[in-house]
Amino acid sequence: MQAVTIVERDLVWQEYPDPEPRAGELLVAVRAAGINAADLLQRKGFYPAPPGSPPDIPGLEFAGEVVGLGLGTSRFAVGDRVMAVTGGGGQAELALVPESNALPVPDDVAWEQAGAFPEAFSTAFDALFTQAGLSAGDRVLISGAAGGVGTAAVQLAHAAGAHVVASVRSEERHAQVADLGADEVVVPDQAIDHGPFDVSLELVGADGVATVLPVLATGARVVVIGVGAGAKLEVNLLALMQRRATIGGSMLRSRTVEEKAMVARAVEEHVLPLLDDGRITVPIVEEVPMAEAEAAYARFAAGGKFGKIVLVTG
Amino acid sequence: MQAVTIVERDLVWQEYPDPEPRAGELLVAVRAAGINAADLLQRKGFYPAPPGSPPDIPGLEFAGEVVGLGLGTSRFAVGDRVMAVTGGGGQAELALVPESNALPVPDDVAWEQAGAFPEAFSTAFDALFTQAGLSAGDRVLISGAAGGVGTAAVQLAHAAGAHVVASVRSEERHAQVADLGADEVVVPDQAIDHGPFDVSLELVGADGVATVLPVLATGARVVVIGVGAGAKLEVNLLALMQRRATIGGSMLRSRTVEEKAMVARAVEEHVLPLLDDGRITVPIVEEVPMAEAEAAYARFAAGGKFGKIVLVTG
Repeated sequence: MQAVTIVERDLVWQEYPDPEPRAGELLVAVRAAGINAADLLQRKGFYPAPPGSPPDIPGLEFAGEVVGLGLGTSRFAVGDRVMAVTGGGGQAELALVPESNALPVPDDVAWEQAGAFPEAFSTAFDALFTQAGLSAGDRVLISGAAGGVGTAAVQLAHAAGAHVVASVRSEERHAQVADLGADEVVVPDQAIDHGPFDVSLELVGADGVATVLPVLATGARVVVIGVGAGAKLEVNLLALMQRRATIGGSMLRSRTVEEKAMVARAVEEHVLPLLDDGRITVPIVEEVPMAEAEAAYARFAAGGKFGKIVLVTG
Repeated sequence: MQAVTIVERDLVWQEYPDPEPRAGELLVAVRAAGINAADLLQRKGFYPAPPGSPPDIPGLEFAGEVVGLGLGTSRFAVGDRVMAVTGGGGQAELALVPESNALPVPDDVAWEQAGAFPEAFSTAFDALFTQAGLSAGDRVLISGAAGGVGTAAVQLAHAAGAHVVASVRSEERHAQVADLGADEVVVPDQAIDHGPFDVSLELVGADGVATVLPVLATGARVVVIGVGAGAKLEVNLLALMQRRATIGGSMLRSRTVEEKAMVARAVEEHVLPLLDDGRITVPIVEEVPMAEAEAAYARFAAGGKFGKIVLVTG
């Protein structure tokens, strides 16, 4: 097979031996694979793939057709359309994933949507609902709402009946984020005027958490899943005590296969029906042939786009 | 009635009009009332009583006999032995409490034990189980384990099947804390060698939280309920993300009557049976007549004792 490969921080489209599915794994002919911030970090050497994943082929998510079945698989058959979050190796013609971590692709969902769906929506669903316990009527701040996880979170929180305040630095993106279901879209410094918040989802860094701490509601849950702009936070613990609030962090990639399977089942039960009936969408800005990954990564890194960049196979 | 009264930071035993129970309240002839750190803070002007509580009569907990019933009370009768956490005013001959916040005193429990039970055990139970979700087999660090809430927490965590690491500054107290059920008793600087911790209960301040952060288990819950030694904490949010950990704070006093009633019911269901059958005890170091509160507070403030100081009526 051909795969995107990290060679001394360059991306090369090169030949590999075809992988063989181990027990419990699906072998998938990849049709589309979204680019995520973690791919850029991995390329720079800051975010190594977990054990068991290819160390030099990036790609945290993909969609494609099942072409091989490991021993003990039972749910999917050759030819089925699947999509998944994976530890790495998704940006290749063939990829492996534990069957328990794969999701069926609804019939009406196109490959490029499916390939860009799993990482952002699994991350956003897990953070908002499993970690933060978001409920209807909660007031939620989503900080960094124009990115992949942010646009997923805005849609999921809106669909669940929360009041969504979206914090987006670029005012050019405000109307698009509002169209996804945000009740209010503000620049980061204004977020403090739109509380109190029951839930705060932080995708940018410590400054966003510091901004929200003074306007947390009683029993508030802050969940941090991105710290690209800084990870060091000073907290007044007495303020947490008075509000009975928690600050937590979360990431998907370091979890066990069993934990990822639990996330996949929750997404299948609670998010796929919304995708299937069109209540949520995967904003796609560009499809790029996988062999041109280098150029696609450069455009992703430049930022300023609204929607995911998806690598597609021939 | 006579009551302990804060008069320009002195404690005076002085006459008040007898209080009348409002709808839903019990009027209780107080037999015993524990002294807590919050009483000392209130006396210094740092921790005002919540609305509806007497502003100048301290006392967060008490036990006594019901002597009057407000409209709509239905559970307790005149003559019943009750104990309760209250917003304030417990250190008096008569005290009021919403019936929903009162607990029955088991027959074999002496007044001085009952008067020193509610605050510490309600606080410890709520923090360990309701806030932190402590389970059997969890490894828990209790920082500040020789105090009132600490000794309650050690016993409750041990009774629930957790592995209890108790952090106690004074080595003279280590054997006594071990006798309460701590598996390991360490000085604060050593706690880092006894992780990883699933739960950390912080009773001292920010330094204790900083110590435990590097040795948290995946999914760990840190709950801070005391910051007497400092409230400012610097957190590396990436470390929370990698461990999927949370830092939360909690206090009982600022909660609504309904929330306090939920705590009381949980304590009644899960803790009273342990008190009734002797699996937990309330360490009492001294009983002091309520009229001598000034001297009792001075001995409490001096520290170095193991167990509660309880004010008793004649």
